[in-house]
Amino acid sequence: MSKDRLTEQLAFLAEIDGLKTVVRQSPLADRSRRENSAEHSWHLAMFALVLADDEAVDTARVIKLLLVHDIVEIDAGDAPIHGNHDSGGVAAREHAAAERLFGLLPDDQALRLKALWHEFEAAETPEARFAKALDRLQPLLLNTLTGGGTWTENGVLEQQVHERYGPTIERGSPALWQRARALVKQHFHQTSRDE
Amino acid sequence: MSKDRLTEQLAFLAEIDGLKTVVRQSPLADRSRRENSAEHSWHLAMFALVLADDEAVDTARVIKLLLVHDIVEIDAGDAPIHGNHDSGGVAAREHAAAERLFGLLPDDQALRLKALWHEFEAAETPEARFAKALDRLQPLLLNTLTGGGTWTENGVLEQQVHERYGPTIERGSPALWQRARALVKQHFHQTSRDE
Repeated sequence: MSKDRLTEQLAFLAEIDGLKTVVRQSPLADRSRRENSAEHSWHLAMFALVLADDEAVDTARVIKLLLVHDIVEIDAGDAPIHGNHDSGGVAAREHAAAERLFGLLPDDQALRLKALWHEFEAAETPEARFAKALDRLQPLLLNTLTGGGTWTENGVLEQQVHERYGPTIERGSPALWQRARALVKQHFHQTSRDE
Repeated sequence: MSKDRLTEQLAFLAEIDGLKTVVRQSPLADRSRRENSAEHSWHLAMFALVLADDEAVDTARVIKLLLVHDIVEIDAGDAPIHGNHDSGGVAAREHAAAERLFGLLPDDQALRLKALWHEFEAAETPEARFAKALDRLQPLLLNTLTGGGTWTENGVLEQQVHERYGPTIERGSPALWQRARALVKQHFHQTSRDE
């Protein structure tokens, strides 16, 4: 006999508690520790609630994309932006993770949440492009709030910040990239004055 | 000259990073540490995304209520369920916190997010009642997953669990309370057999 619907839903909700133990590279704004992927996902959903108002996107859909976007990291881990990855290997691990984790849900919901994750990854809809932009903007802001954060740790230069954050943010929102670029410039010029 | 809209929005999003440092009583499912209010809010939003499907509520609105419901704790702190509080004092601190924190946003968004928080607190709409039910169900599940969690720590009895969680969960969703009550019964009967 198959498990009932609510039993499957609660098993999934218990399993994704694990996202709270996936540690990212970004520092908290108060520099007390590094951020985890669950609280990062909440922060991004708030970015969407506040910033999607001024964009031609469905805010509720952007929020849903961001709530699920990192769940695969429970099995596949976080792949930091300033690092060398076997991107094919990461993608394969993330796809297997999506099958296992979303597969805990009743079939209709497993399909729906997998579709949200695939939409985010594909970055083709306006909502997914905006969600991806926020996923780059948030760690950029945390770095500017913490004297450089992962840029300082990894010796990342202003031009590399442009290359690694710019295309994704600009594709989702030119207005946000215009502001982000100004914040990056301010940070690196302040840093060079301090040296 | 007043600050421009995006500057106010980014100042709010930086300030609410503080919710990641508000520690709750609930343990993580792996018992490695206590949960913070930011990751709790993400987990609740996922509860809504999965469980609201089977209820007569607007899922997107439930998610928005849950994303903002604990932000006042940045100033007012978390008030644990198994403790004695000056509830009038807590309410006054939370109202002042809502004014200050949501007040960082542009006026139209400050009003809208404050309205979401007041809707959650009032627990009158179906969405707010369901959101409140999830806010009780999630720590109940974490306790059953961790050998009793805050119940064991505080010597809370089965009847007290019914009194402190039951009315809020049942008011939001009779089906969820029926299941939650069974999980609670299973936990306490297992515990009494182990003693």
